[in-house]
Amino acid sequence: MKKIGLVTSGGDAPGMNAAIRAVVRIACSRDLQVFGFERGWEGLLTNTFRRLTPRSVGGILHLGGTILRTSRSPEFKKREGVQKAAETLTLNNVDGLVVVGGDGSLRGALELSRETDARIVGIPATIDNDVFGTEETIGFDTAVNTAITEIDKIRDTANSHERVFIVEVMGRKRGFLALTVGLTVGAEIILVPEVKYSLENIVRTLEESSAKGKKSGIIVAAEGIGDTRKLLREIEEKTGLDVRLSISGYAQRGGHPTARSRLLANLFGNRAVELLLNKQGKRMVGLQKGRITSIELEQVCKTEKSLDLNLLRLAQTLAI
Amino acid sequence: MKKIGLVTSGGDAPGMNAAIRAVVRIACSRDLQVFGFERGWEGLLTNTFRRLTPRSVGGILHLGGTILRTSRSPEFKKREGVQKAAETLTLNNVDGLVVVGGDGSLRGALELSRETDARIVGIPATIDNDVFGTEETIGFDTAVNTAITEIDKIRDTANSHERVFIVEVMGRKRGFLALTVGLTVGAEIILVPEVKYSLENIVRTLEESSAKGKKSGIIVAAEGIGDTRKLLREIEEKTGLDVRLSISGYAQRGGHPTARSRLLANLFGNRAVELLLNKQGKRMVGLQKGRITSIELEQVCKTEKSLDLNLLRLAQTLAI
Amino acid sequence: MKKIGLVTSGGDAPGMNAAIRAVVRIACSRDLQVFGFERGWEGLLTNTFRRLTPRSVGGILHLGGTILRTSRSPEFKKREGVQKAAETLTLNNVDGLVVVGGDGSLRGALELSRETDARIVGIPATIDNDVFGTEETIGFDTAVNTAITEIDKIRDTANSHERVFIVEVMGRKRGFLALTVGLTVGAEIILVPEVKYSLENIVRTLEESSAKGKKSGIIVAAEGIGDTRKLLREIEEKTGLDVRLSISGYAQRGGHPTARSRLLANLFGNRAVELLLNKQGKRMVGLQKGRITSIELEQVCKTEKSLDLNLLRLAQTLAI
Amino acid sequence: MKKIGLVTSGGDAPGMNAAIRAVVRIACSRDLQVFGFERGWEGLLTNTFRRLTPRSVGGILHLGGTILRTSRSPEFKKREGVQKAAETLTLNNVDGLVVVGGDGSLRGALELSRETDARIVGIPATIDNDVFGTEETIGFDTAVNTAITEIDKIRDTANSHERVFIVEVMGRKRGFLALTVGLTVGAEIILVPEVKYSLENIVRTLEESSAKGKKSGIIVAAEGIGDTRKLLREIEEKTGLDVRLSISGYAQRGGHPTARSRLLANLFGNRAVELLLNKQGKRMVGLQKGRITSIELEQVCKTEKSLDLNLLRLAQTLAI
Repeated sequence: MKKIGLVTSGGDAPGMNAAIRAVVRIACSRDLQVFGFERGWEGLLTNTFRRLTPRSVGGILHLGGTILRTSRSPEFKKREGVQKAAETLTLNNVDGLVVVGGDGSLRGALELSRETDARIVGIPATIDNDVFGTEETIGFDTAVNTAITEIDKIRDTANSHERVFIVEVMGRKRGFLALTVGLTVGAEIILVPEVKYSLENIVRTLEESSAKGKKSGIIVAAEGIGDTRKLLREIEEKTGLDVRLSISGYAQRGGHPTARSRLLANLFGNRAVELLLNKQGKRMVGLQKGRITSIELEQVCKTEKSLDLNLLRLAQTLAI
Repeated sequence: MKKIGLVTSGGDAPGMNAAIRAVVRIACSRDLQVFGFERGWEGLLTNTFRRLTPRSVGGILHLGGTILRTSRSPEFKKREGVQKAAETLTLNNVDGLVVVGGDGSLRGALELSRETDARIVGIPATIDNDVFGTEETIGFDTAVNTAITEIDKIRDTANSHERVFIVEVMGRKRGFLALTVGLTVGAEIILVPEVKYSLENIVRTLEESSAKGKKSGIIVAAEGIGDTRKLLREIEEKTGLDVRLSISGYAQRGGHPTARSRLLANLFGNRAVELLLNKQGKRMVGLQKGRITSIELEQVCKTEKSLDLNLLRLAQTLAI
Repeated sequence: MKKIGLVTSGGDAPGMNAAIRAVVRIACSRDLQVFGFERGWEGLLTNTFRRLTPRSVGGILHLGGTILRTSRSPEFKKREGVQKAAETLTLNNVDGLVVVGGDGSLRGALELSRETDARIVGIPATIDNDVFGTEETIGFDTAVNTAITEIDKIRDTANSHERVFIVEVMGRKRGFLALTVGLTVGAEIILVPEVKYSLENIVRTLEESSAKGKKSGIIVAAEGIGDTRKLLREIEEKTGLDVRLSISGYAQRGGHPTARSRLLANLFGNRAVELLLNKQGKRMVGLQKGRITSIELEQVCKTEKSLDLNLLRLAQTLAI
Repeated sequence: MKKIGLVTSGGDAPGMNAAIRAVVRIACSRDLQVFGFERGWEGLLTNTFRRLTPRSVGGILHLGGTILRTSRSPEFKKREGVQKAAETLTLNNVDGLVVVGGDGSLRGALELSRETDARIVGIPATIDNDVFGTEETIGFDTAVNTAITEIDKIRDTANSHERVFIVEVMGRKRGFLALTVGLTVGAEIILVPEVKYSLENIVRTLEESSAKGKKSGIIVAAEGIGDTRKLLREIEEKTGLDVRLSISGYAQRGGHPTARSRLLANLFGNRAVELLLNKQGKRMVGLQKGRITSIELEQVCKTEKSLDLNLLRLAQTLAI
């Protein structure tokens, strides 16, 4: 192993830059060269890269986004695209590749690993935390903290006006973000795509809450639960309460990574390079039982990570 | 003057609690009693208040929202409502009243001053900064900083994905917030309700921006400029660019006030009590030419504060 | 089990209020009464407490500090003090007690458990993270994030002036905080009490760092490593570099808890009440292998938590 | 006027980068070339500069520090140094120079203006706000907010432990920062270099404060008031209270600039270029009566800005 490639793909997540820095510095300390492919899979399709050195990744540890930039690449979804990317690796004598990204990117990494002899290792990085094989992804902790900082502020307004707020957080398919956010802001109600919500239950909870003397209410909802505007109107109709909607937007995807997102980036980056040096591929680095470990990409891609519904029940009890 | 009343009304703004603390402590240091009416004008309509003392306003200086709570009161919009409020003042021997709030609340203060002998002094507090007679309102600086912190994070994602973002900030009728936010985040384009936007100009600016090598773009838009979803689609159609929308929500109204919002609250609160002690009423405290001063409520209510269009032009030049 | 007591003791940590809320709400949902003893062990020595209800712990989840207040109690260090506290529990028919605090407080909990039939359960909460039996304590993540936010700012100044900064963080005996902070800010050098530092190594590292083109340097030092002022002078003498010292102070102990500190507080609080309901005592709740679990207080108190020196080596490699 | 120079000098202040961006973009929009001299006056002494273009100052608006870096230059304090700098301007045909910095840097700007025909315009940027001729300097608002955010956290700990904290903020000679910080955090006592403090008064205030039921106390002290460690011991001796010291360090000099610091940077930068284009020199841009204006450098350097002692008295009343 002499040269390795590095790519960030899919939606960006805070801590991607920290992962880039970690991979590059660990790799260089082991006498590897690192090629940073730009704009996600586009860089592999168009052979666009830059040499990354310990100095060129200086000063980026704390920055959101990714200096390699990223994109969603439709061409890479077809087999010809994947083969072209594999050729780029061969052309440049790159015999190892680290892929930093979420669900879709790791699936792409698996596809690519089937068309190349280069060893591929994935690093899970997404604010959605919806990757099987790791208890936490790079960026998740940052997104949660960004959202709770915002909701702490909304709580001020909710209390002053004695209103109910629906706060929509990211999560089209999965509710990891909404659940953790809801649990840590003390939301009265948490709505996740995994559990069909019942308007009656929501209404009853809000009425009980009001009867207990609570002056305001926070409903944290993942964007994937359906139309929150419609939900708002329905709640207003049934309860007569004054309800507002706040959509917590793209800021969740940016910003300085938290300590935990940086720490995972350092540890995952380190382990990814180690795996390559040990001639292992088709694997993803992950956090399991609180330890850094790795798992086959195949298993990551075919297994759905389960949401801990006990936490949802705990959140309900904590909101009494 | 023995007893004064205090009320926070309309939309809450960060620094209202600091203003409450300032009014109460200054008043008590001058041997006045303070009655805090609750939930905005509702408290005056229903004679609901609590005695406020230097101790009861301890520990609130840095908190968002208002401990007196607030509301929008339709009843107070009618003359009977205003007269009822005036009677509450008489009933309690309250001979001075400090009203903390925005545009509508100050209008209410003026109405009330016409129905009572009690002296009424307004303190401008709103994140919109749309009050004539003061260069800045309590809460404006905080809202601006909340918005720019959010947009700095969005810029990370915009750069990583090389996208254009429309960020909608508060401001139904006026663009003070959007303008200051746009100028201080380095927005490529700023859209305010005061200036009708031209789709052609937006498209041209984005194309020029792209031609100059800018990888991303931020459009800051006040909510009052029209349907930002529609604008997004139109821009996408005309430019082929990937555009996203982020609605910067109610968090702008909450959160710990910035130093400047706290400072204004302290200075305005101090001056408001001084005015009452000097037997002045029907006035609003304000910041003019960088100094604390006061102005007739009548003039505040009949004059529209003008937006400095030079700043809009400066923002354009700074975005080259 | 009908009545349980709750006490926060020792140095405060962000998330203690979240733990109070969790214990109270879980306990009340299981029909327990909760007595909150005030000012740490003092409350047990003087029988000073207040009834805590789901409502009385509303609105505190996100606040730093502890509403029960805390103190360091010399009297409780003697056996008579402990016995007096035990009598207070008997007097009030309190048959379970949850103790929230760090190292010393948990030791106190163990002592107390030897003098009473009431069941005692500890919840580890300290910014130092120096408690055996849990991978993380409540407050640690918040303190780390407060410190790195500060150091990110110092890095700006360090870069602009091309200077070396020594940043002293809390940790009189142990280096958990300094190590995690150093690793996540990309410190050039990390000094912990567990490893005697060598001035020669520091000087060599700084010189190599400078030779590699680094314009600034950050040394993160736990307060327990010795006199940082002296170290500064020694480094300046040996290197001729311009070195500054910044002491990162008590702010690390306060502030809104991060999501992770709140989450641990929720999960630990929940488990603590469950243990009491299952008639278990003399135990501490903890996080082990990423799971909530519990361990005998006896073992917690007699075992020293080890610092992972591999992380120190990783930090060195990452700083190349 | 074809070419202008730009230099940042002295201690860095948040918003210097925003000022650099503003000067460069305004200048380039008026067909001027901009040479950015590096490391403060060093760049003029050694003729080290880089061409700055609208693109090269992209993405820096929100960053702390200064991309041109800065230094304190002893050589420039001698007349030979100043003459050498003047020669560098001549050599490069630079006929205008914008100097961004504090007190000392503006003095340097004045000295330089006496040795060259190039027009010199100063922009006040320092967290100390101690520059005559402007109500506010770039960076001041950011430093104040950084300090109050820290002290809000310390207040949590102070309340939980019922302690008095001395918080030392920057300000070797002047108390602008300490005064504004103290006023906006609700400090019980504010100590500034301009007013000799009396131990007796401090002790009496703390005792009265305690008698009124205040559980904690914050003393904000400028570093220039003397030895705060000694003060701590004296207060502890006289009162028997538990007092702690927290030194608020270099983080005040870094971090993302606040909206206000950015706004001043934009407005000052714009005006500075305008002055040069209008063939004016030996002036400093400033904020007076809330408006952007300019003043002779000569007057800036020979006049001491006065601290508003009324604010100190107001702070005392507000702390009752």
